[in-house]
Amino acid sequence: MTGGDVVEEWIARLEIRRCAEQYAHAADLGDADLFVAQFAPDGVIEAPNGTHTGAQELRGVIDGLRSRFAATFHAVLNQTSEIAGDTATAQTYCLARHFYRDRAGSASCFEMTIRYHDELTCINGQWRFSRRRLELVATQRFQADASALKH
Amino acid sequence: MTGGDVVEEWIARLEIRRCAEQYAHAADLGDADLFVAQFAPDGVIEAPNGTHTGAQELRGVIDGLRSRFAATFHAVLNQTSEIAGDTATAQTYCLARHFYRDRAGSASCFEMTIRYHDELTCINGQWRFSRRRLELVATQRFQADASALKH
Amino acid sequence: MTGGDVVEEWIARLEIRRCAEQYAHAADLGDADLFVAQFAPDGVIEAPNGTHTGAQELRGVIDGLRSRFAATFHAVLNQTSEIAGDTATAQTYCLARHFYRDRAGSASCFEMTIRYHDELTCINGQWRFSRRRLELVATQRFQADASALKH
Repeated sequence: MTGGDVVEEWIARLEIRRCAEQYAHAADLGDADLFVAQFAPDGVIEAPNGTHTGAQELRGVIDGLRSRFAATFHAVLNQTSEIAGDTATAQTYCLARHFYRDRAGSASCFEMTIRYHDELTCINGQWRFSRRRLELVATQRFQADASALKH
Repeated sequence: MTGGDVVEEWIARLEIRRCAEQYAHAADLGDADLFVAQFAPDGVIEAPNGTHTGAQELRGVIDGLRSRFAATFHAVLNQTSEIAGDTATAQTYCLARHFYRDRAGSASCFEMTIRYHDELTCINGQWRFSRRRLELVATQRFQADASALKH
Repeated sequence: MTGGDVVEEWIARLEIRRCAEQYAHAADLGDADLFVAQFAPDGVIEAPNGTHTGAQELRGVIDGLRSRFAATFHAVLNQTSEIAGDTATAQTYCLARHFYRDRAGSASCFEMTIRYHDELTCINGQWRFSRRRLELVATQRFQADASALKH
């Protein structure tokens, strides 16, 4: 028989995974409200190109993606989380594809191979990122089929 | 303490994710029975190359994959689902790799970056796809190592 | 209402998935203890380049990865598992990226598209791999951005 505390821990892990998946979904939809809702009020993204703190700066991340790329696709992969009461840490793997047209009009993809080092906090029963530190393992660029991109 | 309805919702989400994973598994094995079993009787795949409705046409999708490619590999990634009673919607990310030999005999891969827009229904306690609409975000082709392909 | 046995089966599936994710995490960190801990005492990896049995040979797999590559990134994708009492089987999809510098100093990636055929056993309430057979679907090499690699 599975104990209630084991079930509770797995529900927490699934909710933490869902935060990472909603983050991806929001980024790719350009939905700044949904994106910000995955973070604690003073939540932080620490990326190679800078650190973004709090709702206004996090919204700027979405604006930046929309202005620079025709489409993005954040594939969320493995996530190993460790829960300690109302806080948690996780390592979350991601392949982030950024599609754009180059100067010649060809569709291209800039892909980031990412390992996020995540810290989360549970606020009123909801898990939220307090910090996502983006470790960039590698990047690559490749040609994609133009017909599939909207603009 | 985690309420029973929270647990029930997460079990539903896991079962919905399993539908997408069995779909991938069935496609890659060429198992038409397992593939069709993930769909409601009048289930639909809506793809750029056409719409396939019901068991017979869904079997044709598997036949088409087997006749055209030496192997396929459907990587199922993030899935965000929303459940409303006996129906659900989900967005499911996928990298679908299709391996084949080109005219010169070299192994190549045609990869589709896909976001499925899924609708599901729970029939006799089993979640099934009523519709999978395939949004093709982008495609690419690349050379693969020939020795790994069976034919 | 969801029955306790359904919950128990899903907890087992989640724990089995976690074994695959900890295997990936351990391989990429170079953590031989964590890697070996995912296996039963006489656990086996059956790979195209040879078979590795038991803790000492499994540690050698980690040593081999660290000596040959600047970094690895094992993306764990779909996993379909079937549980039968204290044993289980699973098919686990993986994209394994191996980063290195070629002779000219450029960063490159050797990527393996893998389907693991897994057998697991539950020992003292802990799921462990008794065997991971690595089916290599295909491989590819591509150029990566050098600046992202540590050495």
